[in-house]
Amino acid sequence: MAHLKIEAVQCHLTQPDTQRLIVVKVLTSEPGLYGLGCATFTQRHMAVKAAVDHHIGPFVVGKDPRNIEDLWQSAMVNGYWRNGPVLNNAISGVDMALWDIQGKLAGVPCYQLWGGKSRPAAAVYVHAGGRTPAEVVEGVRRWTDQGFRHVRCQLGGYVGQGAQHVRPDGAPDGAYFDAREKLHSIPALFEALRNELGDSVELLHDVHERLAPIDAVYLAKALEPYRLFFLEDLLAPEDIDWFRQIRAVCATPIAMGELFNHPREITPLVSERLIDFIRVHLSQIGGLTPALKLSHLCEAFGVRTAWHGPADVSPVGMAAAVHLDVAMHNFGIQEWSFRKDRELEIFPGMPEVRNGYAYPNDRPGLGIDFDETLAAKCPCDNDNPTWTVSRLPDGTLWRP
Amino acid sequence: MAHLKIEAVQCHLTQPDTQRLIVVKVLTSEPGLYGLGCATFTQRHMAVKAAVDHHIGPFVVGKDPRNIEDLWQSAMVNGYWRNGPVLNNAISGVDMALWDIQGKLAGVPCYQLWGGKSRPAAAVYVHAGGRTPAEVVEGVRRWTDQGFRHVRCQLGGYVGQGAQHVRPDGAPDGAYFDAREKLHSIPALFEALRNELGDSVELLHDVHERLAPIDAVYLAKALEPYRLFFLEDLLAPEDIDWFRQIRAVCATPIAMGELFNHPREITPLVSERLIDFIRVHLSQIGGLTPALKLSHLCEAFGVRTAWHGPADVSPVGMAAAVHLDVAMHNFGIQEWSFRKDRELEIFPGMPEVRNGYAYPNDRPGLGIDFDETLAAKCPCDNDNPTWTVSRLPDGTLWRP
Amino acid sequence: MAHLKIEAVQCHLTQPDTQRLIVVKVLTSEPGLYGLGCATFTQRHMAVKAAVDHHIGPFVVGKDPRNIEDLWQSAMVNGYWRNGPVLNNAISGVDMALWDIQGKLAGVPCYQLWGGKSRPAAAVYVHAGGRTPAEVVEGVRRWTDQGFRHVRCQLGGYVGQGAQHVRPDGAPDGAYFDAREKLHSIPALFEALRNELGDSVELLHDVHERLAPIDAVYLAKALEPYRLFFLEDLLAPEDIDWFRQIRAVCATPIAMGELFNHPREITPLVSERLIDFIRVHLSQIGGLTPALKLSHLCEAFGVRTAWHGPADVSPVGMAAAVHLDVAMHNFGIQEWSFRKDRELEIFPGMPEVRNGYAYPNDRPGLGIDFDETLAAKCPCDNDNPTWTVSRLPDGTLWRP
Amino acid sequence: MAHLKIEAVQCHLTQPDTQRLIVVKVLTSEPGLYGLGCATFTQRHMAVKAAVDHHIGPFVVGKDPRNIEDLWQSAMVNGYWRNGPVLNNAISGVDMALWDIQGKLAGVPCYQLWGGKSRPAAAVYVHAGGRTPAEVVEGVRRWTDQGFRHVRCQLGGYVGQGAQHVRPDGAPDGAYFDAREKLHSIPALFEALRNELGDSVELLHDVHERLAPIDAVYLAKALEPYRLFFLEDLLAPEDIDWFRQIRAVCATPIAMGELFNHPREITPLVSERLIDFIRVHLSQIGGLTPALKLSHLCEAFGVRTAWHGPADVSPVGMAAAVHLDVAMHNFGIQEWSFRKDRELEIFPGMPEVRNGYAYPNDRPGLGIDFDETLAAKCPCDNDNPTWTVSRLPDGTLWRP
Repeated sequence: MAHLKIEAVQCHLTQPDTQRLIVVKVLTSEPGLYGLGCATFTQRHMAVKAAVDHHIGPFVVGKDPRNIEDLWQSAMVNGYWRNGPVLNNAISGVDMALWDIQGKLAGVPCYQLWGGKSRPAAAVYVHAGGRTPAEVVEGVRRWTDQGFRHVRCQLGGYVGQGAQHVRPDGAPDGAYFDAREKLHSIPALFEALRNELGDSVELLHDVHERLAPIDAVYLAKALEPYRLFFLEDLLAPEDIDWFRQIRAVCATPIAMGELFNHPREITPLVSERLIDFIRVHLSQIGGLTPALKLSHLCEAFGVRTAWHGPADVSPVGMAAAVHLDVAMHNFGIQEWSFRKDRELEIFPGMPEVRNGYAYPNDRPGLGIDFDETLAAKCPCDNDNPTWTVSRLPDGTLWRP
Repeated sequence: MAHLKIEAVQCHLTQPDTQRLIVVKVLTSEPGLYGLGCATFTQRHMAVKAAVDHHIGPFVVGKDPRNIEDLWQSAMVNGYWRNGPVLNNAISGVDMALWDIQGKLAGVPCYQLWGGKSRPAAAVYVHAGGRTPAEVVEGVRRWTDQGFRHVRCQLGGYVGQGAQHVRPDGAPDGAYFDAREKLHSIPALFEALRNELGDSVELLHDVHERLAPIDAVYLAKALEPYRLFFLEDLLAPEDIDWFRQIRAVCATPIAMGELFNHPREITPLVSERLIDFIRVHLSQIGGLTPALKLSHLCEAFGVRTAWHGPADVSPVGMAAAVHLDVAMHNFGIQEWSFRKDRELEIFPGMPEVRNGYAYPNDRPGLGIDFDETLAAKCPCDNDNPTWTVSRLPDGTLWRP
Repeated sequence: MAHLKIEAVQCHLTQPDTQRLIVVKVLTSEPGLYGLGCATFTQRHMAVKAAVDHHIGPFVVGKDPRNIEDLWQSAMVNGYWRNGPVLNNAISGVDMALWDIQGKLAGVPCYQLWGGKSRPAAAVYVHAGGRTPAEVVEGVRRWTDQGFRHVRCQLGGYVGQGAQHVRPDGAPDGAYFDAREKLHSIPALFEALRNELGDSVELLHDVHERLAPIDAVYLAKALEPYRLFFLEDLLAPEDIDWFRQIRAVCATPIAMGELFNHPREITPLVSERLIDFIRVHLSQIGGLTPALKLSHLCEAFGVRTAWHGPADVSPVGMAAAVHLDVAMHNFGIQEWSFRKDRELEIFPGMPEVRNGYAYPNDRPGLGIDFDETLAAKCPCDNDNPTWTVSRLPDGTLWRP
Repeated sequence: MAHLKIEAVQCHLTQPDTQRLIVVKVLTSEPGLYGLGCATFTQRHMAVKAAVDHHIGPFVVGKDPRNIEDLWQSAMVNGYWRNGPVLNNAISGVDMALWDIQGKLAGVPCYQLWGGKSRPAAAVYVHAGGRTPAEVVEGVRRWTDQGFRHVRCQLGGYVGQGAQHVRPDGAPDGAYFDAREKLHSIPALFEALRNELGDSVELLHDVHERLAPIDAVYLAKALEPYRLFFLEDLLAPEDIDWFRQIRAVCATPIAMGELFNHPREITPLVSERLIDFIRVHLSQIGGLTPALKLSHLCEAFGVRTAWHGPADVSPVGMAAAVHLDVAMHNFGIQEWSFRKDRELEIFPGMPEVRNGYAYPNDRPGLGIDFDETLAAKCPCDNDNPTWTVSRLPDGTLWRP
């Protein structure tokens, strides 16, 4: 196999459930040898597909799929401008597929290439929401009854809350919400949760960048008594210097990063020890190659990993995450969202969750496959998400 | 209109109510085309008038009113010494008038020149005072009953409180007050307010620079549990490095700036993220040209605007503020003081407040006019304010 | 025109010369009223086109084109992930077109909306290259003979120099160059230039991110005696914290930014005064709305503008740049590349250069038009640039 | 004299030579007891006069002139907004007069009130200009022949140099100059001066804020080999954070401050040891009361004094400066400009300069008087200075 080459790069779109998923398949000159990667940027799927089909795909075809590092570096700078979500996802699609191929060539699961298992499985966190604290308590109990120990708790969803205020005449369309209302409702929620649930369950909360910076500082401090496992996405990527203020006033553990695409968003937060968990979306930073390096960087500064794992990570991306989770020494936690049967049929080999732990399978590579025929039966819609036009009570567009 | 010129600059003084107002009118070579600007420095009105009549006015006459930026820059350095209240107000009078003229030339409201509306109207905050917490509660309720959601709460006025201590013999004249007494009375006030009013009303408080620096740090921390919308004017301009201490100990939102005239007072506070709301008096920083730049500066650091809006901003200045409020993305809140009928007659076109929101009108420019005849019937007095000779119990002159 | 709406958004690709250009045309409900914007990301044109056609375009259709700020903000966060080159260009295409429309509605050139002219025209810098210092001297003289005072001087082009070293067997394909060789050849070039040309011409140099960080520090210091107007693109966006090292050792003026897409790349460099000229590519940061804010941010810190102006900025983008250049007080210099006749025919209204200065015309809006029929006769190729696979002598892929 | 009171405050304008001078005379209830102060802000004389006549004067009349500190503090905050040039000058006029009165009451020169003489006289620096280095050498020799050891050397005046470049069409009026040209001409000047004059003369140079910040850094470094006594006014007040860059690259002594009015401009520069000489204009910071404190502050950080002493400081202000010079331990140098006879007649008692030293006389108070009748014969003109509309070659308004 001295002259192995990339023969073709395909970009598949599919929507088995609510999210548009983007999967890249890299075919090689070796018959039957191919790899799969996740390139899912669900809100901009057509731009990612164009980037794979017209730019990144043609760039790698004909090259040796074993030179993963060189291909990653050259694909990144080949467009000169870089570090953005569309191109990073396109590169991730190829990059994960190359690691999948490399595992298959070696006949070992990917985690084995990276030093083997540091643990047999990855603890996951799940999600409980409700309109009242009592409903959230109920939701947490449903999970703990099934053996889960880490639960993210949200009150009233991410938008739509507290917008009962008078709006000015002519207020524009949007998903209205009241950011300030969370400053008392969320601490009250966690007080109720601790009172009802005691101390053994690990509680998490996601701010989803919905607060003004100083209000984020306040909330982090106000939640300190409830010993959160972590507080997630407190600040927008543009505002992350405010983490210094948060560190100055409290010891709430901070998880950050699903929106990050650029090393400048990540490296200073880690090297200044301003966060505790790095929570990037693997395909948004460009795939497994940068994620391995990022894990190693974080270990040097006492920061743990908590890769993004919502429904808009494809099962291929979830497999990649779980392979990292079991291998990297400084793993922290893995976000988990359960998939419907149709999605699991399209993607055979999805890691399994038992008793609050996700287990990778032991097949070569990432251990996951993709049924193109079935996927083709679930075409993508083109709806814009409404929650990304969120507005404050006065009509101001606010970050989601 | 290739050869448009400034024909004359007039400086009008009028006092329809308690405050001396200074309005600059810039007339052009185009018949009927003029602009209005606010130059109100109520305590030093005669110095501002001399600056307009003898210095800034003659400097701009004969020049093209469309070169707003160049005129602002050259008026600023034409006196060599700069960044002070008298000259900044004089320049503001001309600068706002030039933007008013530019809007009229373009046939659009000023907010349209700056990128259009980010919201249909500006939320305002109003003021409730009382001798006891119960009176303040009452005052807040009067406002919320009318639809207002943001109320600044003061106990016992700004001076005159707590000076019941024995004074040394020969204590000089002045408005005595006890700064230390506020360290317990103000937190007690807000505890009472939250107990009585609950969480839905937004509460603000103005320290008016009346505390020693470390006592300001204490108060900011002591008020944190009451979730103020913001705490205003905690420190004198000379002491603002102490904001770092405040950031180190609490997450109380900080609004600052009505006394600022100089970029050195503003830029470091913003770029080091030491404040949350910039609250400058538009005419005191030199008008709309610097305010536009300041808004943009603040946006880069997560700081919102809250332009000063007391009775000593003329209605022209209030119109300028509200045009900025609806246009700038990082608007926070607008201070509001209602005007008596006589003032509204002198200044037709004042933004209207409905249900807690201020609405600019949609006429070209700033949308406000000035009745010189009526204004002339309300001449200015020359009284010095007594509160600016405030003293501590031992007789020490203290900053107001 | 109370109910003005965006009717359609078109994305045009054209390649009149060596570069693929991307132009967005926004049509409104007012017959004949449209705007033009530049969305040129020449290496990833198909991804940008998909982003406009499938995502950004449909998002803005039906909305009021006068709400420029609100549309920019909501387009930015509508995809959740943001601050990358593909989406920023798509948004820029719309954003510049909205400012063009606003100028036309107001009947004034765009520079007038932003405060009028701070200078009648923008000084430009041009480019002189050669294989030897003598050739570069010759090239500079050709420019100064035509009245230009600012010339960027490059020896031997950007790649292909100094790769005469022995390479290891199996060195991969690529554009080889020797980064270390520049540490002596470039100072020698500028010594020769100053000896031959004296002190009155302003000399610039572009490193194009081709050095290891510490070698960049060395070069900046080694060039200090030759009083460059500025040294451009010394470091890759991922390495910009090294600018602190450069500041510590020399006073060479630093221009940076053509590769920037993210506020995190820009704001700290400016607010820590680590650069002297911000040199971003307007469409790469998202258009005129962020560029106005960035100009104002820079002014607060003594940083001047030097917008990127190579052949892969469309003439629409160049018009936008020149409108900013004449209006913003802290303008520094404008990069210029002359266009062939065919490109000027496709884009009537391009700013004119006379005696080293670029002049905007005085037509409403950006003052430039687009001949779609002619443009369609110049379709785009799909070639990858070879210089973006540059390699060091040992075969290492290096940043371009 | 238990009940001494201020009876009246007069503001006199006079122009014996090129500069408009402003002198405040404070009369007391004690017959014949009065004091004199300098309030000279030559470019805004009418505004200062209005501030004295209508605001500061009436505020102090009736109060005890011996409470200098209390009057200074209360006059500063009585207008609420403060720290600007017009009001500081008005306060300075009164403040210096109160110290003059206090010296007369005590029957001692002012320097005696502040601890007596640290030295018998103050070394002064004088000014030599020329169109060529040879002319400047000549000018320096004329001074050293008269016993002066400190000479400020300027080439070609402050403006009007190097503007021989092509200007853009429509370039506005102004005093054109080429800031960049100084980067080679000034080091060349000092190389010539040192070559011709040797090492025993102390050389100074004034940049007068005419450079872009990074060019100021360069010049400071380029002048390092010539061992300047100091380099003066390198940066505009708005840009003083750039002094950190200057400290990082060279050891050129820095004098700064003639434009300062605000503690925020001064305190950080001193406490961070970013300058070596504080060079404020006494009346611009509010008089002798703040100057005494500033001297003491500077001593704590190893910074010396070099009070501003051009022709637009009145002889009263010069007397105040020399009294400080001989008394304060950390005196450095005194700028000196010789006055014509008419000015000396109007102000009998001006300190005398002999052999490069200025000597205060030993009369009580500041030892200087004011002939109102003679002064009235020299009324002020109202011309704007042209050098404060200085422009760069492209027409940009630049700071003077």
